[in-house]
Amino acid sequence: MRVLVVHGPNLNMLGQREPDTYGAQTLEQIDEMITEAAEKLGIEVNIIQSNHEGELIEAIQQALAWADAIVINPAGYTHTSVAIRDALAAVGLPAIEVHLTNVHAREQFRRRSLTAPVCRGQISGFGGVGYVLALHAARKIVEEESS
Amino acid sequence: MRVLVVHGPNLNMLGQREPDTYGAQTLEQIDEMITEAAEKLGIEVNIIQSNHEGELIEAIQQALAWADAIVINPAGYTHTSVAIRDALAAVGLPAIEVHLTNVHAREQFRRRSLTAPVCRGQISGFGGVGYVLALHAARKIVEEESS
Amino acid sequence: MRVLVVHGPNLNMLGQREPDTYGAQTLEQIDEMITEAAEKLGIEVNIIQSNHEGELIEAIQQALAWADAIVINPAGYTHTSVAIRDALAAVGLPAIEVHLTNVHAREQFRRRSLTAPVCRGQISGFGGVGYVLALHAARKIVEEESS
Amino acid sequence: MRVLVVHGPNLNMLGQREPDTYGAQTLEQIDEMITEAAEKLGIEVNIIQSNHEGELIEAIQQALAWADAIVINPAGYTHTSVAIRDALAAVGLPAIEVHLTNVHAREQFRRRSLTAPVCRGQISGFGGVGYVLALHAARKIVEEESS
Amino acid sequence: MRVLVVHGPNLNMLGQREPDTYGAQTLEQIDEMITEAAEKLGIEVNIIQSNHEGELIEAIQQALAWADAIVINPAGYTHTSVAIRDALAAVGLPAIEVHLTNVHAREQFRRRSLTAPVCRGQISGFGGVGYVLALHAARKIVEEESS
Amino acid sequence: MRVLVVHGPNLNMLGQREPDTYGAQTLEQIDEMITEAAEKLGIEVNIIQSNHEGELIEAIQQALAWADAIVINPAGYTHTSVAIRDALAAVGLPAIEVHLTNVHAREQFRRRSLTAPVCRGQISGFGGVGYVLALHAARKIVEEESS
Amino acid sequence: MRVLVVHGPNLNMLGQREPDTYGAQTLEQIDEMITEAAEKLGIEVNIIQSNHEGELIEAIQQALAWADAIVINPAGYTHTSVAIRDALAAVGLPAIEVHLTNVHAREQFRRRSLTAPVCRGQISGFGGVGYVLALHAARKIVEEESS
Amino acid sequence: MRVLVVHGPNLNMLGQREPDTYGAQTLEQIDEMITEAAEKLGIEVNIIQSNHEGELIEAIQQALAWADAIVINPAGYTHTSVAIRDALAAVGLPAIEVHLTNVHAREQFRRRSLTAPVCRGQISGFGGVGYVLALHAARKIVEEESS
Amino acid sequence: MRVLVVHGPNLNMLGQREPDTYGAQTLEQIDEMITEAAEKLGIEVNIIQSNHEGELIEAIQQALAWADAIVINPAGYTHTSVAIRDALAAVGLPAIEVHLTNVHAREQFRRRSLTAPVCRGQISGFGGVGYVLALHAARKIVEEESS
Amino acid sequence: MRVLVVHGPNLNMLGQREPDTYGAQTLEQIDEMITEAAEKLGIEVNIIQSNHEGELIEAIQQALAWADAIVINPAGYTHTSVAIRDALAAVGLPAIEVHLTNVHAREQFRRRSLTAPVCRGQISGFGGVGYVLALHAARKIVEEESS
Amino acid sequence: MRVLVVHGPNLNMLGQREPDTYGAQTLEQIDEMITEAAEKLGIEVNIIQSNHEGELIEAIQQALAWADAIVINPAGYTHTSVAIRDALAAVGLPAIEVHLTNVHAREQFRRRSLTAPVCRGQISGFGGVGYVLALHAARKIVEEESS
Amino acid sequence: MRVLVVHGPNLNMLGQREPDTYGAQTLEQIDEMITEAAEKLGIEVNIIQSNHEGELIEAIQQALAWADAIVINPAGYTHTSVAIRDALAAVGLPAIEVHLTNVHAREQFRRRSLTAPVCRGQISGFGGVGYVLALHAARKIVEEESS
Repeated sequence: MRVLVVHGPNLNMLGQREPDTYGAQTLEQIDEMITEAAEKLGIEVNIIQSNHEGELIEAIQQALAWADAIVINPAGYTHTSVAIRDALAAVGLPAIEVHLTNVHAREQFRRRSLTAPVCRGQISGFGGVGYVLALHAARKIVEEESS
Repeated sequence: MRVLVVHGPNLNMLGQREPDTYGAQTLEQIDEMITEAAEKLGIEVNIIQSNHEGELIEAIQQALAWADAIVINPAGYTHTSVAIRDALAAVGLPAIEVHLTNVHAREQFRRRSLTAPVCRGQISGFGGVGYVLALHAARKIVEEESS
Repeated sequence: MRVLVVHGPNLNMLGQREPDTYGAQTLEQIDEMITEAAEKLGIEVNIIQSNHEGELIEAIQQALAWADAIVINPAGYTHTSVAIRDALAAVGLPAIEVHLTNVHAREQFRRRSLTAPVCRGQISGFGGVGYVLALHAARKIVEEESS
Repeated sequence: MRVLVVHGPNLNMLGQREPDTYGAQTLEQIDEMITEAAEKLGIEVNIIQSNHEGELIEAIQQALAWADAIVINPAGYTHTSVAIRDALAAVGLPAIEVHLTNVHAREQFRRRSLTAPVCRGQISGFGGVGYVLALHAARKIVEEESS
Repeated sequence: MRVLVVHGPNLNMLGQREPDTYGAQTLEQIDEMITEAAEKLGIEVNIIQSNHEGELIEAIQQALAWADAIVINPAGYTHTSVAIRDALAAVGLPAIEVHLTNVHAREQFRRRSLTAPVCRGQISGFGGVGYVLALHAARKIVEEESS
Repeated sequence: MRVLVVHGPNLNMLGQREPDTYGAQTLEQIDEMITEAAEKLGIEVNIIQSNHEGELIEAIQQALAWADAIVINPAGYTHTSVAIRDALAAVGLPAIEVHLTNVHAREQFRRRSLTAPVCRGQISGFGGVGYVLALHAARKIVEEESS
Repeated sequence: MRVLVVHGPNLNMLGQREPDTYGAQTLEQIDEMITEAAEKLGIEVNIIQSNHEGELIEAIQQALAWADAIVINPAGYTHTSVAIRDALAAVGLPAIEVHLTNVHAREQFRRRSLTAPVCRGQISGFGGVGYVLALHAARKIVEEESS
Repeated sequence: MRVLVVHGPNLNMLGQREPDTYGAQTLEQIDEMITEAAEKLGIEVNIIQSNHEGELIEAIQQALAWADAIVINPAGYTHTSVAIRDALAAVGLPAIEVHLTNVHAREQFRRRSLTAPVCRGQISGFGGVGYVLALHAARKIVEEESS
Repeated sequence: MRVLVVHGPNLNMLGQREPDTYGAQTLEQIDEMITEAAEKLGIEVNIIQSNHEGELIEAIQQALAWADAIVINPAGYTHTSVAIRDALAAVGLPAIEVHLTNVHAREQFRRRSLTAPVCRGQISGFGGVGYVLALHAARKIVEEESS
Repeated sequence: MRVLVVHGPNLNMLGQREPDTYGAQTLEQIDEMITEAAEKLGIEVNIIQSNHEGELIEAIQQALAWADAIVINPAGYTHTSVAIRDALAAVGLPAIEVHLTNVHAREQFRRRSLTAPVCRGQISGFGGVGYVLALHAARKIVEEESS
Repeated sequence: MRVLVVHGPNLNMLGQREPDTYGAQTLEQIDEMITEAAEKLGIEVNIIQSNHEGELIEAIQQALAWADAIVINPAGYTHTSVAIRDALAAVGLPAIEVHLTNVHAREQFRRRSLTAPVCRGQISGFGGVGYVLALHAARKIVEEESS
Repeated sequence: MRVLVVHGPNLNMLGQREPDTYGAQTLEQIDEMITEAAEKLGIEVNIIQSNHEGELIEAIQQALAWADAIVINPAGYTHTSVAIRDALAAVGLPAIEVHLTNVHAREQFRRRSLTAPVCRGQISGFGGVGYVLALHAARKIVEEESS
């Protein structure tokens, strides 16, 4: 089983970026956590980060040829990108949206996700752990659908 | 570590209730899954279900004396109950909101959660598995905060 | 054929309650009217009234085992209860929403019914007679669908 | 007792028109049903259909000289016609709004009725039977008010 | 100088129609008042009334060949007719909107006039007198623009 | 018969002020026009202008002791002053709102009048002539109500 | 003179509940304060607290047989309960709404009270003292109306 | 292949009507263009124009017996007519909405089309040429669907 | 302890002003009531009334040098004045907003208070008595904060 | 005559992408169709596709030096990109917006086009054929404006 | 070159007024800074402060006879005063709006400026320095327009 | 002191781009003006322009290692980019938003800035001069905060 993990804009700043909001973990540390958990779950992961909407779209498009599922944190693009939503719908793979923070407890505009309606589910508020939970969920979904 | 698991209205109908939307699992089966996972995680769980807003409020209030965290699926009350929100804020325990379905992909009114802003995070769209993920998250949060 | 008739909150106050708005008939008188009409139509009715959202939900859930249709006046909960809506959707029986007054001619917030979209139809503005019309409609629906 | 029955635009297409939404009954069949029921209730009915807002307005105006009540399905004009609303208010006869479908379960714009607030009540979702129920309601109202 | 006076839907019911709102004057009486005032002002008037949006549009279109100005009470169509607005803009004659009642003091939906923005001005709240005031205003406008 | 004429803020700038929008007439010229028309109508007028909301309120309050009606152009305060609205309601004299320009054809915020609902009517779009029309209307109203 | 004092959901948590927002006083202490003040004012009080919307409705209904006025803090139900509003309107006793905190300075959704429009007045922001002020107001209202 | 071409209100005024907005072409010239293009495409066309909503509805209804497709410019009714929308849905023929001007670049209310959602597509902004493009599109659709 | 009592616009009209809404008491009578109550409470009061927003702002500003608290009824300015809100925030004294009527039961625009969020609390609906209750509340607040 | 054809994000996925919504044609096939049609029309075309908002902006900017018109399907960016709108306005070339699907019949957020108001017109709902129609329209516009 | 500098309500409280929001500088200190900068720029300044909307309007009106430009901080009136907006438009001098704080980062209602659309530009968030920047900008504008 | 100056999309088109709106200055000329002013102020500047949201984000991120402040004109991304907002918040440097035009006087959607709330202030409407003013403001802020 193969999962593409997609980090959106500014996640490369983790650790440095508003630590009161986003925590002290760096993206590197989160990626290690993801890799480790993936290994335990027998999942091969490919992790990318980009600040470019177009690159995120293309990473999603290319997943079609390789991945069984997508775990994605579209970060700031969550609330503004119809194009990423369309990419997720276009590939049709089961996708899971992750947010480090509890988006429901922040600014009003962070409550609207354009991408969540084309995902299978959303996990928000648990920092880096959210990605690990998403891998569990992804495995469950893929197993059920291939059985 | 002790966690109160709260099922809101109509969840006692699972299996019978709109299976295309909510899946074929009964609440009993979900509760078994929760209990089993809790055991593995070394968590003592107490599970309640009620269709009464007032009973849900009181279960939350009583958690103050016993639980370290709350996992709650407020179901239909998610979108309408300031009183349950206030109860969660009143006890101040870390709480995690769970939804069986992807609420972001359904009717417009299901997108607004009155309770999520006073929870630590939200997990939606993974059926009964969502509760298990929530237990993992709860353990993480309690461990971090007690360390 | 069996029909559950559900009266929502404050309907036990009829006769005493704002008679200019709701008329002088008591709930008892309406229930007699219902019973009489049901008899003529060859319908067995079970009538309940509750001021508790949770009890209304449970009455609806229990109808699954007994009734062929539901006639419901959710009163004040019409405009605020996702949980009753979900209960009606969960049991999946044909349901008919009744209002004593013409809700379309009153306060703006009474114009939105959360429950009507999961009912077969709505009858409003005819006082107690509305329930009798609803019984007629219910019989028609059940007959058609069982034929 | 005399009742004007008014069918709005496109109701002449019934049977042919989106049968999944509006049913297989033709307007002729509904009119027969109405006539038959009226006879049983001792009501003289006059039935008109028009696709022209102006003709509907004038039919309502002329009812003043003849009818004791109006049963009206303004169809598409329900949601857009202040002029028909004003006509109903101008004649001041008890009026009952009928819809074949459950307008509360369709597009958002069908939920607003400009005409319902000047009617005595509304019956929606029961196909042609709705007109028969409306005749019953009309008789009740006229009887009560003339007593 | 020639002025077309246009009465919209239901104005033919004046006197009979909600006299508490619209006054006891009949349309005939108002038309006499208009004719008399027009004579004094040296204005030739043509008065029409119609309940049909299409007829109102065509009356406005035909004014192009005859009138110097239009005085129009679009009644219920004021709030709903883009087509009448477009007709007024198409002929380009100075137009004055009249309302018998103070539309600003009634239902919310009567506050929006689709036609007023393409008229020169609006007079509301003075019953039949409003038409006479409009004739004065029309004469003033035509005089100024032809000088 | 006595009428208070009230000019709101910036009307003292007429002639100089955006002549494309407000015309070339000065307030002085308008006041002469008003005085002359009042004389013909047998109306004693008192004309005031102020840029101060408080002074406008007090002029309205003092009208109670002297005037039979008020003609008021609240200018910019039309859209923002609950206090002037309350003053007009407090004195209870028949009031007529006048606007030089067609407020319905300008910025969206000029379409809402807080004061019009407590006036008898509104005249807009006819420049200084609007005041003269308002005097006619005022005389009509006072005559009718004192007869 | 007799007054029913009604405490809504979560008020039983006072002292423990978000003390920065709600203060350190327990409900017991507030109730003592109320009892003492009532005694001084010659008012017999009956105090109830419930987390159940249905119980609150029924307490209000039963007040009809006993009380001269109602002092109610509907807490979280203030913003969501049409049913409690209807109960207050049904009994028709003078009612006074109390809030411990200044609801106007908190979340947007706390600014809308469904119950206040059917009460005589509202007192918010003064902690437990608000109930005492409400008793004073209630006595004044009852005295005036019975004189 | 047969296509009904429907021109809505005020299109008979083309050439005379706001030429800066709608161009200098008359409806006659446009109709010639349509006829010529249709001939080339081997399409038999029937062209009607009406200012009456009811006539437009009936033209659409009658197309059912004759046409393979409808090309319609509902003009002012685009934004206000649920009844024309319902007529288009009732006949179920492929329909194409045409606008002479770019409705997306004009007043806000022209941006909402009630009819477009029941058409196959929309062409706006190209003057009379839009009808010719619509004929091309119509032929394509009919060919594809009959193949 | 010293309290500034501020009466906003049109309160000088009390007794004369819409007595059905505002009661028969004059401002003088209310001021006597306030003075008397203040004396009993050992509070020195300074009472001002103004119809001028600017004077109200300056009275509030000057309170900084003299008063321990402010009791203010901003009347019509409640709903429109950011400047009075800013003045209250600028002086930072505990302020209590009073309304004679139950603003929650009147026009929609009276439900929004711009000033309440910077006050400690609000009392509305009890006529002149509201000021006396506010003095009690003010004393309580000042005592608590100075202890 | 030279036309730049711009395909926005995810259009490179055509054929694979939600074929029920977008059809089975690949972008390659559409481009062939465009090239062929262009040839017949004597138009030189340059076709680009990009998933990057910035690249689309730059393609538009560079068109200034080469093209006579732009045909653009901004896809997901239609609804979210002020920057592409600004690029279109900056170059000032006649532009035509194309959508494969009928955007008016899909999600609410697809109904708002930020780019359409700075284009000459919009063609939506005809799949790949829309581009061909757009070329026809472009030629017409360029011819007219250069004549 | 001459510039009128206008300070709106509560700016006389600077230094004392919410120093965390508005800074510790007094208005006197800001005025010195302005005077000094003006001198360096060869600008003659006239500085006024008022809490009265009417006085601000009149200061703006009088600027017509003296000033080449206006620098204005309308403070609380920014968000509520159509009358000040109209005054600025009436005099037609280039005007620059200044705010001490970043109004875009505060309450929602501070984001709407009624006056900014009739100014040349807006400077916000730089405390007293904003006025100095505004003088620079004013000089630039006046120079350019007089050249 | 070092300042990063960031120009957003389409600013490379200045001079060519809608000169009536944006002026005749090219970006090169503005950059010279900036460089010159920076030199006088003893500020080292680094100026970048990009049409790519992702590049703008990365320029902002890299500023963390070099700059003391950011001056940014996000152009079209101002109104749509949560990701740029997040980048500005992530680096936490004092930032100043600049707009060439007065955004408050243009289309409604240009009035909302997603980035301004995380900047220190905003300068709009002064063409290229705005950047120079921003440099002054930046120096002031950096000086104050480092003192």
